[in-house]
Parts: sequence; C-alpha cells; structure tokens
Amino acid sequence: MAHIDIPSNFPGIMGLMKYRPDTGKLLLELSETLLRGESPLSIEERELIAAYVSHRNECNFCRGVHGAIAKQLLKNNSNVVETVYQNLESADITDKLKTLLKIAAKVQIDGKQVSEDDIQQAKNLGATDREIHDTVLIAAAFCMFNGYVDGLATTIPNEPGAYKEMAGQIVESGYAGAKELLFE
Amino acid sequence: MAHIDIPSNFPGIMGLMKYRPDTGKLLLELSETLLRGESPLSIEERELIAAYVSHRNECNFCRGVHGAIAKQLLKNNSNVVETVYQNLESADITDKLKTLLKIAAKVQIDGKQVSEDDIQQAKNLGATDREIHDTVLIAAAFCMFNGYVDGLATTIPNEPGAYKEMAGQIVESGYAGAKELLFE
Repeated sequence: MAHIDIPSNFPGIMGLMKYRPDTGKLLLELSETLLRGESPLSIEERELIAAYVSHRNECNFCRGVHGAIAKQLLKNNSNVVETVYQNLESADITDKLKTLLKIAAKVQIDGKQVSEDDIQQAKNLGATDREIHDTVLIAAAFCMFNGYVDGLATTIPNEPGAYKEMAGQIVESGYAGAKELLFE
Repeated sequence: MAHIDIPSNFPGIMGLMKYRPDTGKLLLELSETLLRGESPLSIEERELIAAYVSHRNECNFCRGVHGAIAKQLLKNNSNVVETVYQNLESADITDKLKTLLKIAAKVQIDGKQVSEDDIQQAKNLGATDREIHDTVLIAAAFCMFNGYVDGLATTIPNEPGAYKEMAGQIVESGYAGAKELLFE
C-alpha cells in the first residue's frame, strides 16, 4: 500500500500524477520532451538510459515500464536490455553508447563521480556535447522519478503483461498520449 | 570547467537551462510550481527541504542558492539553515518539519528507505498526505537538479555575495522571474 491515499487503480507514477495534476502535467511533459523530443540520441538509446538508471535504483515500476519499452523498440534483440543491466561491457550495443551508459551510472550514484576521463572516453568515440548533456539529464531525471515513485511506496501493477501493455501504448502514442487518460 | 561547452557567465543550472531551452523552461516551471505554487508547506519549509537535500548531495551550487534563499526567508533566525545541515534534531523548527526533513533525507539516499514508521511519525505530528507528497517530490526533484548540475561539472559563481544576490532576486520574483534573463 502506498504511503499516502492515491488512486489505487493507477500504479506507479500514474497515481501520483493524478494526485497532483499541476506537477503531474509538467513531469509528463518533461518525459515527452526528454524521451521523445529532439535529441541526437535515438529513442531506443534514451529508453535504455532510463531503464538502466531505474534498474540501478531498483525501482521496479520504472524499470518495468522503460525496460519493456526498450525491449519493444529493440525488436530483434530483446536480450540487450537484460545484458545491459547485468554485464554492460558484453551487451550488443555501440561502444559509444556503453560510455554514455557508464556516465549515466555515475550520475545515479553521484554526479560528482563523472570524471574528465569518462567524458573524454565518450568524446573519443564520437559522443557530442549534446549527447553527453542529454544522457546526464535523462539519468538525473530518472533519479527523480525513481525517488518519487519509491519514496511514496506506490504500487506496481498486479496483472501479468501490464508493463508490456503500457509499453505498447507509450511506443505508439508517446508520453503525451497519457495526458487524456490521466487528466481529462 | 564544465564537461560540455555551456555559457560560462551563467553558473550552475542556469547555463544548462540556456544550453537546452526546451527542457530548461520545463525545469524552471517545475521549480516555480514546486517551490512557489500552491502547497500546504510554507515557502520557507520548501526551500529548507531543497537546501537540505542539496547539502546532503554536496551540490555546492544548489545548496548555495537554496540555502541563501532559506536564510533570507527565515530573517530573524538565519542559523536555522546551518543547524538543520549539521544537527537536525537541535534546529529551531517544528517537530513536524523535522519528521518531513528526515523523510527528505531518506529519499536522497533511496526512496525505498522511507518506512511506514517514518510516515506514521510525520502523521502523528499532524503532517497531511499532501505535505508528505510535496516533501518527497521536492526531495526527489532536487536529486535531479543536483545530479544534473554536478554530472556536467557546471561552475559555481566566482563573485563573493553571488548566492545572496541570486537568492534576493528569487525571493522577490520567484523562479518564473528568471525566464526573461535566461530565454529572451
């Protein structure tokens, strides 16, 4: 049971967005802008960063949703997500993305852990300033989402296949697509 | 020097907001809504939560700004901020606010550390669901701001008195007041 009285039929952050719509709408818009808006990082790469940070924060709801989205986007290679969680170096992704995920992992612990050397390794593999920026902001934003969802002990969905279904809707309509469901 | 090429005359998060204005505008609006919008928590209480989390994350820029704002708002009792950082129990604030700051401190480590008992202690002292919600979201949001500011190694202001001056502007015009400076 959640720490506060929120709509029980809306698991994870969805119930919190409904509970306080003024911040809920901004957080949804931030998700849409960060994960679907203009960026040199592909949508798959951004969802993988979100899922990886949520995995490292052991946030079941966010990992469930964003891990399922990343799996759907990486259609032919759905083991990638699990391998990124367990053994990043051996994952079937570009070396550049590995260096960005390592930066995201350091932000998850403490932003000050990101070193000149981490940045240089990413730049040596072709990462641009904007790619590094977006990686750090997505990682930091998921520390917020994870802390919010877990700090209020929100529930996870009961139904088997719920993450897959949510992921399917988000892959189709983006985060903005949830606006109607939550706020109207 | 920051990890990426951002306007050097805008320290901390300000340079990042200018660097990517679409997310910058949303983050500024989130600050205004969380810290100045409608809430049962007073503005002083909210700024103290923001400063305390930033202190615990050792984020010099955010602690500098929000600590200075909290000091200006708590006019007659400016040692409160330092005492909250160093020895929360002995600070001259309400017992209810102490329980909320303890919840914020747990969110700063990991949302899952917030226990039923922490929530019950706050509720026993009169904290409402909405006060607990806003505390957790402010704490989680500052984990994002801190990780973003430090993950990109943004600079802190050089001029003595810079935090006091920024704090004065925010106390007067809120966060929305920075819109013109940053985006126009």
